Amino acid sequence: MSDNCLFCKIAKGEIPSQKVYEDAKVFAFRDINPQAPVHIVIIPKKHIAALASVSESEESILGHIQVAASKIAAQFPELKNGFRLVNNSGADAGQTVFHIHYHLLGGRSFGWPPG
Amino acid sequence: MSDNCLFCKIAKGEIPSQKVYEDAKVFAFRDINPQAPVHIVIIPKKHIAALASVSESEESILGHIQVAASKIAAQFPELKNGFRLVNNSGADAGQTVFHIHYHLLGGRSFGWPPG
Repeated sequence: MSDNCLFCKIAKGEIPSQKVYEDAKVFAFRDINPQAPVHIVIIPKKHIAALASVSESEESILGHIQVAASKIAAQFPELKNGFRLVNNSGADAGQTVFHIHYHLLGGRSFGWPPG
Repeated sequence: MSDNCLFCKIAKGEIPSQKVYEDAKVFAFRDINPQAPVHIVIIPKKHIAALASVSESEESILGHIQVAASKIAAQFPELKNGFRLVNNSGADAGQTVFHIHYHLLGGRSFGWPPG
């Protein structure tokens, strides 16, 4: 945990969120500024800053997040025809909270490029 | 392996690609229709159709792809300020090849929403 991390506080319930999924390692909640009919933010409970700084010791939790994304997507009928999963790493990509998170978006069609 | 899968054939070298990374489990190559100065497609050598259909037995390879993405990004000076990693699952999200793949994009700023 990082004392001043917004997402660590959300994962601990210290800051309220609209939770959609939780297990021992992962927490997921609705994005407060949704970019699609369904827009979920998926985070590890462990504080990891960004994808750019991960190491092999984090493979397990990162894989767990991918499978969680798939399970969460299956909860939403709007996502039955597809969804997009996005990780922004670093300022150039638009990362604003430096606790690694994956955006799960669906319920509409998506253009290309992805931003 | 799936006999008629384009990405299986690329991973085996049966169809040429501009390879940027390979290890025992993962293969990565430049996208033939790049959407950013650096645009890499990262795939598992194992045939998995889409993120929507993964199971817990695939956590390890999916985590390995995330760490590989981070390592690949570190190879490119253009990505030092950030990158975006995108998985399209299903037709609505724009998935066209049904062998799971993650797009690693960087070298420019990215807008929001991500498509």
